[in-house]
Amino acid sequence: MHQPHEHLFRYLADQAAWIEALIDADLQTVNDAELLDVLRHALLAGGKRVRPMLVLAAASLVGAARPQEQATVRSLALCVEYLHVASLLHDDVIDNAEQRRGRPAANTLWGGSRVILAGDFLHARAMTLAGAAAGAGAITILGQAISRMVEAEFLQHRMAAERRRSIDAYLQVVAGKTAALIAAACELGALAGGGGANERTALARYGTKLGLAFQVVDDLLDYLGDPAKTGKQVGNDFAEGKMTLPLLLAIQRASPEKRADIDRLLDQPASQEAFGEMRRVLERLGGFALARQQAAAMIDDALAALTPFADCPEKSVLTGLARYVLERQR
Amino acid sequence: MHQPHEHLFRYLADQAAWIEALIDADLQTVNDAELLDVLRHALLAGGKRVRPMLVLAAASLVGAARPQEQATVRSLALCVEYLHVASLLHDDVIDNAEQRRGRPAANTLWGGSRVILAGDFLHARAMTLAGAAAGAGAITILGQAISRMVEAEFLQHRMAAERRRSIDAYLQVVAGKTAALIAAACELGALAGGGGANERTALARYGTKLGLAFQVVDDLLDYLGDPAKTGKQVGNDFAEGKMTLPLLLAIQRASPEKRADIDRLLDQPASQEAFGEMRRVLERLGGFALARQQAAAMIDDALAALTPFADCPEKSVLTGLARYVLERQR
Repeated sequence: MHQPHEHLFRYLADQAAWIEALIDADLQTVNDAELLDVLRHALLAGGKRVRPMLVLAAASLVGAARPQEQATVRSLALCVEYLHVASLLHDDVIDNAEQRRGRPAANTLWGGSRVILAGDFLHARAMTLAGAAAGAGAITILGQAISRMVEAEFLQHRMAAERRRSIDAYLQVVAGKTAALIAAACELGALAGGGGANERTALARYGTKLGLAFQVVDDLLDYLGDPAKTGKQVGNDFAEGKMTLPLLLAIQRASPEKRADIDRLLDQPASQEAFGEMRRVLERLGGFALARQQAAAMIDDALAALTPFADCPEKSVLTGLARYVLERQR
Repeated sequence: MHQPHEHLFRYLADQAAWIEALIDADLQTVNDAELLDVLRHALLAGGKRVRPMLVLAAASLVGAARPQEQATVRSLALCVEYLHVASLLHDDVIDNAEQRRGRPAANTLWGGSRVILAGDFLHARAMTLAGAAAGAGAITILGQAISRMVEAEFLQHRMAAERRRSIDAYLQVVAGKTAALIAAACELGALAGGGGANERTALARYGTKLGLAFQVVDDLLDYLGDPAKTGKQVGNDFAEGKMTLPLLLAIQRASPEKRADIDRLLDQPASQEAFGEMRRVLERLGGFALARQQAAAMIDDALAALTPFADCPEKSVLTGLARYVLERQR
């Protein structure tokens, strides 16, 4: 069978090897052997390295030649990966997570205290790299992204506690938790590559829409994914009572009776039967189709943001990534 | 009775009011109401505001006129206080602390998750302020201070777990946990005031020695302080099995028999009787006198670092603060 995303996957794999070598070299600055163990576990656990790849591709799009070899690009690629991993470390402590990427989460091996501190270290190192590479402009972009991530987590906790059914609040959470750092990666790449204000805005917009669509597809896969492909069980969001987009859109269109059905399913203990029934209710109400339409519209916006840029291999990577986000089955 | 530190206290109180007004104004940038509650609780709980005061005084020493009115000085003063409070927030989660400055710790009111996130927010805001005010130079100073704080906490955890008796390791922990950010505050003030490399180094040295001496005196007060003056019970370090300087110096001078006495006291459950006996053992071995000598030598070094600077009211504040650190009873 033809593999339509082969070019994208090859590019991602190449860049992943590049960023892992950068991480490895940068960790030489860590003195404490135990801290180094925590950081190596967290940073060198695989992962697609999408955020550093976006820094690189965005720098190319605004005209940087051989961005991999530019110190500014390298530092900013490293720093977005560090901030991403710092947020995963703190999230795993917050959620008391046991697993991350199929391995024990760092907090299960070293305890929450050391993992909070390791996150703080990565945060500081990321800011130091960004400041040295690109000055206050880069720090401001990252600082805003982190502020939005934190405010989104506060909002998400409240949404869960109050079981709020607001599509606006949902989108605000996703914009902060997932899209803000992806948009920052794109904008930093444009900054490092010497892009102007319009180019920076366009690439940040691409990143925002890509991040939003990514999360909506994630929501869909949690109801409709094939565990053999995704590698994880479906129904986790349902079991946790998470108000994700297919559910919120279904509730919006439901009659009072159907809403009562949904409430009953959310209130009873999670089971395979309850999950199956919820899936049928959402299907009939069009929750999945509507969520997919929204994701497709977001990806259209992401692609539209790229139209001002000249064709180049990296533009194909960014358009390919956007299409893959919509089509992915895992 | 004559109050020898009156000038210092008046200056500290004035600057505390100034920094609290800056915090209050800066918190306008926070959107989420609940996050704002956590931050206000943590940031507006009193405290001497020594670190921002050091930014201000150091800027004056290198020749800045009316530093309170300079935007760079204001941002850097705010940012060192934010980083200090961010570290207190994360420390209180790590230690599961119930109280902070005589009030419930933020984690007891909002839970550890929100407090970890609030610390991350302050961290990001601090870096954004520092970058915008003074660029990569300020970020590098702060990033190094945070790295040292984190590495010191890792070392401290190991020292406690292994009950290590190393004076070098003790000093390394204190240099990172307490002195690094105080030194950074002094160095940032010199930077903001337009000081040269020598002035920056001298003020950083003042801060390092001041921070070290502060902690050694804290160790002494935990054995010898008057609860009526300190407002806290003595013997906390002993009860926690902390290897502080008076204890380490006493062990260094002890005969094998006396060492066995000390080990026995450390191994048995903490009690008023055991604490009283430990205090007598350390007294006889000269642990307190030696620790006080070391603190005095550190303060001499701190004062020596200030000799190149011309006399001015702020120099009197810094020399007064150094003498107060040694003489304080609380």
